[in-house]
Amino acid sequence: MNTKAPLVLSLSEVTNTLKNLNLIPLIEEGFVSLSSNKAIVPPVGELLFENPRGESHIKYGYIINQPYYVIKVASGFYENPKIGLKSSQGLMLAFSQKTGVLKAILLDEGHLTDIRTAIASMITLKYLAPKHNIRIGIIGTGIQAELQLKYLHTVSNCKEIFVWGRTAEKVKAFKDIFKDSNYNITIAPSIPELAHNCNIIITTTPSTTPLLFSSQIKKGTHITAIGSDTSEKMELDTDIIKKADIVISDSIEQSKTRGEIYKARQNNCLSKDTLRELGNIIKDPTLGRQNDNQITVADLTGVAVQDIMIATAIINNYKI
Amino acid sequence: MNTKAPLVLSLSEVTNTLKNLNLIPLIEEGFVSLSSNKAIVPPVGELLFENPRGESHIKYGYIINQPYYVIKVASGFYENPKIGLKSSQGLMLAFSQKTGVLKAILLDEGHLTDIRTAIASMITLKYLAPKHNIRIGIIGTGIQAELQLKYLHTVSNCKEIFVWGRTAEKVKAFKDIFKDSNYNITIAPSIPELAHNCNIIITTTPSTTPLLFSSQIKKGTHITAIGSDTSEKMELDTDIIKKADIVISDSIEQSKTRGEIYKARQNNCLSKDTLRELGNIIKDPTLGRQNDNQITVADLTGVAVQDIMIATAIINNYKI
Repeated sequence: MNTKAPLVLSLSEVTNTLKNLNLIPLIEEGFVSLSSNKAIVPPVGELLFENPRGESHIKYGYIINQPYYVIKVASGFYENPKIGLKSSQGLMLAFSQKTGVLKAILLDEGHLTDIRTAIASMITLKYLAPKHNIRIGIIGTGIQAELQLKYLHTVSNCKEIFVWGRTAEKVKAFKDIFKDSNYNITIAPSIPELAHNCNIIITTTPSTTPLLFSSQIKKGTHITAIGSDTSEKMELDTDIIKKADIVISDSIEQSKTRGEIYKARQNNCLSKDTLRELGNIIKDPTLGRQNDNQITVADLTGVAVQDIMIATAIINNYKI
Repeated sequence: MNTKAPLVLSLSEVTNTLKNLNLIPLIEEGFVSLSSNKAIVPPVGELLFENPRGESHIKYGYIINQPYYVIKVASGFYENPKIGLKSSQGLMLAFSQKTGVLKAILLDEGHLTDIRTAIASMITLKYLAPKHNIRIGIIGTGIQAELQLKYLHTVSNCKEIFVWGRTAEKVKAFKDIFKDSNYNITIAPSIPELAHNCNIIITTTPSTTPLLFSSQIKKGTHITAIGSDTSEKMELDTDIIKKADIVISDSIEQSKTRGEIYKARQNNCLSKDTLRELGNIIKDPTLGRQNDNQITVADLTGVAVQDIMIATAIINNYKI
């Protein structure tokens, strides 16, 4: 009656396996499953901590007719770097959908969450970026900001990057990471200046107050807001959502209680006519950007389908 | 920046460590924390499966000023025994409350959930059992039924046991488990007969329709209902809750959406005057049974504080 011990993969084994995966179509398939009602994704579980400040999210669910149900734990403890630890921590668990037996433990320490989040951002750029004279502005200098540039080549040839961060030190450190790359990185002295120079803006901070305002947004701009995944966090003034021609949610259900779209709804800045779900745009790209004059905003709160897809792919591609 | 690998304990390591623990005061402390608002316990996460029928519960949270937050996954796939697997599967995870770092993985395959559930039942008997002429009736013959008798000695000297099961084969197998014990086990031909002969009744089935009815319950009876932990399952007719002098919930919050008390509330069979939380009775036993004429009912839906306490104790007592 004993069950077989689960596969346990370390962070380095996860990272090595990740190299062999074609992540964009994988994560796209997850979003399409969600928007096609083929995914069971209950509300996010959440724990908050005060001293020190931290949060843990449990995202879980399954895609019908796949082998595993997946439970993902990802936490952010923002004072960790002071003691030499990464802010992100966590793991992913895969269980048989037929028996409940635990099949695999991916000790990814939050890395797969970071990756699948960056890939979702790339997918929004693939469908929503303007076509011409692309200049990309990144707000924030943490791991998500870094991953944007590491994966940008998968969806864009753009090399003109602007970056804004809270301290000169952090922006300098961010620029240094890419000193041997082909990117031409300009440090923006302010967010308005970044917005003025760019027609794609990616926000990657854990801010709880708006950083970007509608008056700063030029026609033709696409914004992908990555930072806010709770009811507390926000990076965009809600007027930006009102101004946008198309507003994309990774999960319309989740956007009812989390992220920029939640905040916009609270301030009566969300029109039903502009709101679309990412998976539906992947299925029918004509629902995305029509021309280079539209303002488009994608709000990513992070959905369990991303975790399910990436965990399953790691397990299937791991070579013992 | 790398974190130390978590402690990973196999089922046998968990089982060996369990032998050294004094479980009753441990689980009592968890219930007291809950009833004293010292525990953060979000709503239970739940996944349901249809083919084959199965369910997975995620219970999680933390007790303030303890070292770990705990996430517990426990599933029931009721057709597993047909293919040689236990119905119960799952694991427990312990993370630092200060950094989110994963500290331990207990590969208990659902065993710790089974144990902490049985111990909660023992705690209800400790505070609510009548004092004289005890005869205990167990409805159901599965793992929970078995664990009741394995742990009964911790709270009672009673040796007179009645058991009822769905098939003669299962009841016989159950009786055989205890053939070398001091228990005098009588197979009850029907549930009314079991109820007639016993003043303690413990229900341990995954039934979704009532098995026990108020007309069958004698004065002075205590009932502990273990089986129902969802909004679907029920073992007691809701009139039993109406008839009871004291109704005990392991978590009044959880009882709003799960278990016998939830069903009773839906049928207007719950009086606020009779409802008490188990942790409050542990703090002040005078809130429990007053005499041998009262009818008392304890409804256990299973609370994360039990998981937090047992996981933490296993980690603290594991000898490397």
